[in-house]
Amino acid sequence: MTAAIPMRDSLGEVLVPADALYGAHTARAAENFAIPGPRLCDHPELVHAVVHVKIAAARANAELGVVDQAVADAIVAAGVEVLAGRHDRHFILPVLQGGGGTSTHMNVNEVLARRASQILQNAEIHPNDHVNRGQSTNDVMPTAIGIAVHPAAMDAVDALNRLREALLAKAHEYDTLQHLGRTCLQDAVPLPVSAVHRSQAYGIGQAVENLALTAERLLAVPLGGTAVGTGLGAEDGFADLAVRNLAAALGKPVRRAEDPYYGLASLESLAAVTEAMSRAGRVVARVATDLRLLASGPDGGIGEVILPSMQAGSSIMPGKINPVIPELAMQTAFQLAGAATTAHLAVSAGELEVSAMAPVVTLNLLTGLPALSAATRIFADRCVAGLSWNETAVARNLHGSLAPAVTSATTNGYEAAARDAYAHREATDQ
Amino acid sequence: MTAAIPMRDSLGEVLVPADALYGAHTARAAENFAIPGPRLCDHPELVHAVVHVKIAAARANAELGVVDQAVADAIVAAGVEVLAGRHDRHFILPVLQGGGGTSTHMNVNEVLARRASQILQNAEIHPNDHVNRGQSTNDVMPTAIGIAVHPAAMDAVDALNRLREALLAKAHEYDTLQHLGRTCLQDAVPLPVSAVHRSQAYGIGQAVENLALTAERLLAVPLGGTAVGTGLGAEDGFADLAVRNLAAALGKPVRRAEDPYYGLASLESLAAVTEAMSRAGRVVARVATDLRLLASGPDGGIGEVILPSMQAGSSIMPGKINPVIPELAMQTAFQLAGAATTAHLAVSAGELEVSAMAPVVTLNLLTGLPALSAATRIFADRCVAGLSWNETAVARNLHGSLAPAVTSATTNGYEAAARDAYAHREATDQ
Amino acid sequence: MTAAIPMRDSLGEVLVPADALYGAHTARAAENFAIPGPRLCDHPELVHAVVHVKIAAARANAELGVVDQAVADAIVAAGVEVLAGRHDRHFILPVLQGGGGTSTHMNVNEVLARRASQILQNAEIHPNDHVNRGQSTNDVMPTAIGIAVHPAAMDAVDALNRLREALLAKAHEYDTLQHLGRTCLQDAVPLPVSAVHRSQAYGIGQAVENLALTAERLLAVPLGGTAVGTGLGAEDGFADLAVRNLAAALGKPVRRAEDPYYGLASLESLAAVTEAMSRAGRVVARVATDLRLLASGPDGGIGEVILPSMQAGSSIMPGKINPVIPELAMQTAFQLAGAATTAHLAVSAGELEVSAMAPVVTLNLLTGLPALSAATRIFADRCVAGLSWNETAVARNLHGSLAPAVTSATTNGYEAAARDAYAHREATDQ
Amino acid sequence: MTAAIPMRDSLGEVLVPADALYGAHTARAAENFAIPGPRLCDHPELVHAVVHVKIAAARANAELGVVDQAVADAIVAAGVEVLAGRHDRHFILPVLQGGGGTSTHMNVNEVLARRASQILQNAEIHPNDHVNRGQSTNDVMPTAIGIAVHPAAMDAVDALNRLREALLAKAHEYDTLQHLGRTCLQDAVPLPVSAVHRSQAYGIGQAVENLALTAERLLAVPLGGTAVGTGLGAEDGFADLAVRNLAAALGKPVRRAEDPYYGLASLESLAAVTEAMSRAGRVVARVATDLRLLASGPDGGIGEVILPSMQAGSSIMPGKINPVIPELAMQTAFQLAGAATTAHLAVSAGELEVSAMAPVVTLNLLTGLPALSAATRIFADRCVAGLSWNETAVARNLHGSLAPAVTSATTNGYEAAARDAYAHREATDQ
Repeated sequence: MTAAIPMRDSLGEVLVPADALYGAHTARAAENFAIPGPRLCDHPELVHAVVHVKIAAARANAELGVVDQAVADAIVAAGVEVLAGRHDRHFILPVLQGGGGTSTHMNVNEVLARRASQILQNAEIHPNDHVNRGQSTNDVMPTAIGIAVHPAAMDAVDALNRLREALLAKAHEYDTLQHLGRTCLQDAVPLPVSAVHRSQAYGIGQAVENLALTAERLLAVPLGGTAVGTGLGAEDGFADLAVRNLAAALGKPVRRAEDPYYGLASLESLAAVTEAMSRAGRVVARVATDLRLLASGPDGGIGEVILPSMQAGSSIMPGKINPVIPELAMQTAFQLAGAATTAHLAVSAGELEVSAMAPVVTLNLLTGLPALSAATRIFADRCVAGLSWNETAVARNLHGSLAPAVTSATTNGYEAAARDAYAHREATDQ
Repeated sequence: MTAAIPMRDSLGEVLVPADALYGAHTARAAENFAIPGPRLCDHPELVHAVVHVKIAAARANAELGVVDQAVADAIVAAGVEVLAGRHDRHFILPVLQGGGGTSTHMNVNEVLARRASQILQNAEIHPNDHVNRGQSTNDVMPTAIGIAVHPAAMDAVDALNRLREALLAKAHEYDTLQHLGRTCLQDAVPLPVSAVHRSQAYGIGQAVENLALTAERLLAVPLGGTAVGTGLGAEDGFADLAVRNLAAALGKPVRRAEDPYYGLASLESLAAVTEAMSRAGRVVARVATDLRLLASGPDGGIGEVILPSMQAGSSIMPGKINPVIPELAMQTAFQLAGAATTAHLAVSAGELEVSAMAPVVTLNLLTGLPALSAATRIFADRCVAGLSWNETAVARNLHGSLAPAVTSATTNGYEAAARDAYAHREATDQ
Repeated sequence: MTAAIPMRDSLGEVLVPADALYGAHTARAAENFAIPGPRLCDHPELVHAVVHVKIAAARANAELGVVDQAVADAIVAAGVEVLAGRHDRHFILPVLQGGGGTSTHMNVNEVLARRASQILQNAEIHPNDHVNRGQSTNDVMPTAIGIAVHPAAMDAVDALNRLREALLAKAHEYDTLQHLGRTCLQDAVPLPVSAVHRSQAYGIGQAVENLALTAERLLAVPLGGTAVGTGLGAEDGFADLAVRNLAAALGKPVRRAEDPYYGLASLESLAAVTEAMSRAGRVVARVATDLRLLASGPDGGIGEVILPSMQAGSSIMPGKINPVIPELAMQTAFQLAGAATTAHLAVSAGELEVSAMAPVVTLNLLTGLPALSAATRIFADRCVAGLSWNETAVARNLHGSLAPAVTSATTNGYEAAARDAYAHREATDQ
Repeated sequence: MTAAIPMRDSLGEVLVPADALYGAHTARAAENFAIPGPRLCDHPELVHAVVHVKIAAARANAELGVVDQAVADAIVAAGVEVLAGRHDRHFILPVLQGGGGTSTHMNVNEVLARRASQILQNAEIHPNDHVNRGQSTNDVMPTAIGIAVHPAAMDAVDALNRLREALLAKAHEYDTLQHLGRTCLQDAVPLPVSAVHRSQAYGIGQAVENLALTAERLLAVPLGGTAVGTGLGAEDGFADLAVRNLAAALGKPVRRAEDPYYGLASLESLAAVTEAMSRAGRVVARVATDLRLLASGPDGGIGEVILPSMQAGSSIMPGKINPVIPELAMQTAFQLAGAATTAHLAVSAGELEVSAMAPVVTLNLLTGLPALSAATRIFADRCVAGLSWNETAVARNLHGSLAPAVTSATTNGYEAAARDAYAHREATDQ
C-alpha cells in the first residue's frame, strides 16, 4: 500500500495511490462500487477488448490528424503493454458497476493516458481529450463487450463440439447394442444405443449452431456512434477507419453495425448470446441427466450405464460412487439459466438511447461462458468418453419391452394385446 | 347481437350495444384490448370482489351523507344482482388490460350505475359521480384483487392439506416397510417408507404455512386511499367505514393497510402470493417426481411404487400405463413458475405512485391458484391415495444397500470397507 | 346433457355420453384432467393439426395396403368434417394434461374412428388399429404441435412487421426533427427523431428474423418415428409417404426431421420458438416503454410524445389519459417471459426417449403467440400510427443538451468544459 | 509449487502436493471440478461453518466415548486453527461441484485429519473414521450451509434496515413538501414527499421481515441424520449432543430440524432464503428506479430529485452526472433474480433422499447476500442520505396536478370536469 496523493477532476479532489496508473475517475468509482465480486483484473479479456478499441481509435485519430502521431503512438505503446498483461493490477474496478460501463471505460482511458504520458515523457496525455478522442462509453463499451465475449462464446462452441464428438464416438462403439427405450419413465420398446448417443450429439450440434450464430453478430459493432449514436465529436471517417483497424488487429470480420443507434440503445445482441449459452447448458444438462438416470443403481436402479468412477462418493458410505461429473454439468446449466433471467431483466430495463444495465449482462457472459466450456469439456472427457454400457443390465431390462405387444396388436388388435400385457404384468408382480 | 347506439363520454361518442348494461368506457376498452385470453365473465370472483367494494363504499357514502340513501340502496341492489350472477355477460373486458385495472373497475362502475338507474327508475346514477364516489382505481383495485385472490389461495391451502393427509395416511399404511434410500440416484442405505411419506407431508405443510401467511396479508387493504393514497375526494371517515362494511360483508378480518400509499405503489403483496403459489407447486411436483421415479419400470426401472392405473398410456404400445397424474402436477408447477417470472417483471415495472402492471399478475393468480388446487386434489385422490409399494421390488432393490459397508467401516475403517464394496460390485457386474 | 352409456377399453368399463363421438380413453382422461384452463375445443388449430396428420397417415396406409382404401377414405372424410369445424364440441380435454399428449391424440383418434365408422356404416373403425395405424403419440404429437404452432408464429411475424412499418412511417414523418437524447435518464445530446424510430424498427426486424427462423424449423417433423423413434409398427415407406402427404395438404415445406429420435426426445425446437416469442415481446415492450416514458407528463414529465387518447384514464381524476396501449404490450411481454420460464422447466424435465412435458409448452405457445400478435397489432394501430411529437416540449427539453459541452471540450478540454457545465447547472437550479 | 507425492484412497493412487494438508479425495475433486469461479478459500464462511460442525461432532463423539478424547481434542485444536484463518490455502475446491457437497465436506475432513494428526503427533487421525465419525455429507452440509448463510442473511437485514432508516430520515427532512404524484407515468395529484419516502421504507421493512424469517429457519438443522436421515452410524444421543454443542459455540438458537429427513431431501429452506434475497433486491431496486426517474433531466426530465454527484458520468459529455448508485442497486437486483431462477431449477432437480444440487444454490447465496448488503449500504449512504428535492422543479411540476379537476368533479360531475381538463390541456399544448 503506497501513499495516496490528491488528484483533481471536474468534481474536485480525490485521493489516488501514488503508484497507481489510474486516476481520479477510477478512484471515485472504486469507492462508489465497493462491492464483492469479480474485478476487471479477474477478466483481462474485457480490459484487453477495450484496449483494442483504444488502439484502433488512436491510429484512426492520428491518420485523420486530430491526434498527434506521437501521442497516438504512445497510446498504442501503452495499450500493447496492457495487452501483454503488464498492468493488470491497475484495473481495480468490479465488472458490475452503475453507469453502463463508463467506469470500466475510464479505468482503461486513465491507465493508458498515464502510461502513455510516461512513455512520451514530455507531454501530458489526457484520458478524455486524447485516449478517448472521438469516442463515448456509449459506442466503445458495446463494441468492446462484443469483442470480449466473442472468443469466449467460440471457446464454448469448441467445448460443445468436443462433447458432440465424444457422443458420436460412443454411438460408434455401441453400434449393435439395443436397449430398452422408456417414455414417461415407463418401459417402452427397444432402440439402438447408437441412436441414443447420435440423437444426443444432434442436440448438441443444434446448440452449437445457435450459439455460433448469436456470437458472430457481436462482431457488428457500433464504434463511431459516440454519444447516443450520433457520431458527435468524432472526425468524419473515424468510424470506418477505427473499425477497419480493429478488424485487422483481431483478424476477425469486425464490421460496422447496420443501425448505429440500435447497438447502443439495446442489449438484445448480448441477451441473444446469454440465451444461447443458457440453451446450450440446458442441452448438455439433458445429456447429463439422462446418463445419470441410466447409471442409477447400480443394484436398485436402471443400472444400464456405468460412468467412470472419478472419486469416492460419500464420507460415510464406503463404496459409494456418485455421478459427480453429470451433476457438475447440471448445476452449471442452472447457473446459466439464472444468467438468462438476469439478462432478460437487464435488457428490459434499458431505456431510450442507451442500455445502462450492460455491466451485469457482461459479467454473466464473462463468467458463464467459461463455466459452460469447462463443465462441458470435463463432462466429455471425464464422463462420456469413459462410460460403458452394462450389457447384463441392458439385457435384463429388455424384459420390460412392449415390442411384442406392439406386434401382437397388428394381428390381434390393440385391446386384446393390452389385456394380455396387463395380465402378464399382474402375474409378474406377484 | 343487438343494435348499437351512440353514447358520449368525455372523449366523445362511441357505439354501445343497445342492451348492454355497460357504457362508453367499457366499449372503448373492449376495442383497445381486443386480445384473446380470459375475460372478466370467466372470472366472476374478480368482478364480485369489485362489487363488494362498491357496496361497502355506497353504504359508507350514504352514512356520511355524500350519496343519497336511495341512490346508495339502488347501487347495493344492483350489486346484489351481480353477486347473484345475473349480469355476467356484461363484463366483457379481458382480465389483462392496460391501465392498472381502470377498465375492469369502470366496467363494474358502469354496469352498477346503469342497473341502479333502472332500479331507481326516476334518477340517473352516474358511474363516476355516484358508484365511484370517494374511490379511485388506485385503491379499489388492489383491495378487490386481494379479496378475489384470498379465497383462491385458501382453497389451494385446502387442497394442499388434502394431499398432506393422503401422504400421512400412506406413511401410516406402510409403517413397517423399509426401502432402499438413494442419494445422487445411487444406492445408499435403507430408510422407512413411512419416513419418506412423512417427510413429503412435512414439505407440503411448510408450503401451506407460507401460502396462508402471504394470503392473509391481502386482507390489509388500501381502500380509502383514492388517488395515489391521499384520500383526496373521499369524505372524512370514509376509509374506516368502507373497510368495516367490507369486513362485515365478507366475514373476514379485512382491515386497513398499515401504509396506505404502499399498497397502491407496490404489487409486492401479490408477488408474495404468486411466489408462494409457485413454491407450493414446486413442492407438490417434487413429490410427484419422486413417486414417478420410484414407479419407473415396471421391469426396466426402480419399480418400487405402483401408481393407480388411470388410463391407457400409449396409442401404439398396448399395456403401457403412464404416470399421467404426477405429470399433470409437474406441468402445473412449471406453469406456476412461469407466473412467478411474470409477477417479478410486472412488480419490477411498477413505478412511482402506482403499479400499473397489476392486471397481468392478477390474471396469473386467478388462473394459477385454481390450477394448483385442481392438480393437487387430483394428485392426492387419483395417485397418492391409491398407490401401493411393490414389496417384491422393494426387497430386491435392498440388495444395493450400503448399510453393511457403513457398519463394517466402524470396525475395519472406511478404506477397507470401500475396497470390499468395490470388489463386491465388480464381481456382481460380471 | 345426454345419458351416459358404458364403454369398455383395456382397463375396463367407463361411462361415455351417448351422443359423444369420443370414446373410453377420452372419457377417462376428462376425469383425470378435470382442471380449469383452455380445452382442445378452444384451440381447434391443435386438433386440426392432429387431424391433418391422421389424414396424411390414412392415405399413406391405404397406398401401402395396410389399411383398406374404404376405411382410409372414411377416416379422411371424418377428418375433413373436423377441419370444417363440425365436431368441435367433442374435443373436450384440456390442452394441459399428463402424458405427453397421448390423451389429445386419442381424443382425435376416437372421434375420427367413431365418425368414420358412422360414415362407412357397415364397419367398425378402431381408434388405435385403424386411425392410429403406424403412428404413436411419440411422433404424431411433436409433428402436430409443430404444424399448429407454425402459422401462429408466422402470424406474429406479420404483426411484428406491421409494427415495424408503423415505426418506419413515423421515422419518415419526423425526418427533420431533433430531440434530446438521454442516457441513464440524464440529458445527453440531440439525435434525430427519425433515428429513434428507425432503430426501434430495426430491433423489431431482428426479432422477426429470429422468430421466423425458429418457426421454420418446426416443419422438420419426426412423423414415422412411431414408438421412441424406431418406426416400429409402421410399414416400410410410411414416413416418406405420410410426410409428403402432409406437405401437400398444407402447402408448406414440411419434411422429415434430420434425426428422427431427437424430435421425440427433446422439446428444444418448441423451446426455441417460445424463447423467440418472449424475445419478440420484450423488443415490442421496449418500444412501448420508451414511448410511454417520452409521453410522461404531460406537464410534470418529459412530454415529448403525444400518444393517441384511447380512453379515459381514471375513475376519479377527470382529464387523465393513460398510456394503456403500451401498457398492454408491456404486460403481454411479461406473460411471454413467464412462458419462457415454463418452457425451460418443461424442456429440462424431459428424459430419455421422450419429452413428456410437451402439453404445457404447447399451451403457452398456442395462447402466447396470438397474444403477442394481438398486442403488437393494437400497439401498431392504436398507438404508434397515431402518435405525434410535441415540438414545443421537444424544443424546451433541448435546453438540456450537452452538445455544446462536447464541442467545447474539443477546444478547451474535457475538464474545463465539465466545470463550465456544472457551474451552469448550479446557476440554473437556483 | 511443491513436489507431489502419491497418496492412496479406496480408488487407488493419486498425486497430492507434499505440503498440502488435504488428501486424496480433495486432489481428485480438484481435477474433476477444474472450473472457474469462487473457491472455498474465497468463502471461508462456508469452510468455517463445516469446521464448527466438526468441532461440535468431535466433542459429542468424545463425550459418547466413540472417539478418544485425545483424538477429539486434536480435531478441535485443528478446527480452531482453521477458524483463525491459518489454513485457508488448503481449501482449494470450487464451491460449485458435483455431488451435493461431498467434496467440500471431505476437503475439510482431510485438512482437519492431517492437521490433527500433526498436532497429536503419534497417531494417525482419519478423515472418515475420526473426523467424520457419526456424520454424513447428507446431514453435515445442509447444517453447515445453513450456519454459513444465516449471518450473511442477517447482515443483509442490517443493510436493509440502514436503508430503511435513511428513507425515514429523508421523510422527516421533507415533512412539509408536496410533490406531484404520477400514475401510469401521467400527472395525477399531489402527495407529501414524506409519504413517498415512508412508503418506500415500509416496503423495505416488509422485505426485512421476510428475509429474517427465512434465515431464522436455517438454524433448524438436520445434523445427526447421517446417511439419508436415518442416523445410521451415529451413536445414540449424538444428534442432541452435537446440535447442543453447535448452538453453544455459535451462541445462536441452533436446534434439530422437526423432520430429520426433509432437511436432507429438500433444498426448500435455502430456496426460501434465495427468494427472500431476490425479493429484497427487487424492493431496493424499486426505490432506486423511482429515485432515478424523479432525478431524470436535469432539464429534459422530471428533475425533482437531486442525487449526490458521485463521479463524472460520461467519457465524452462533460458535465454529465449519472445515477450510478441506483443503477448499481438495480443491477444487483437483476443478479439476485437470476439466483432465484437457479435455485428454482436446483431445488426442482433434487430427487428422492437428497438434494444433490445444493452447491449451486449455496454459491448463489454466498455471493448474492453480500452483494445485496453492499449495494444496499452504498445506496443508503451514497445516494439516499445525500439526496435533496429541487423545490423549484417540484413547484413547476405541480402545474400538472389534476386535484382541481377532482374537486371540480364533486360539484360539476366527472364528465364536465374532464371536458374542462382536456380543453385546458389542448390550450397548453399549443
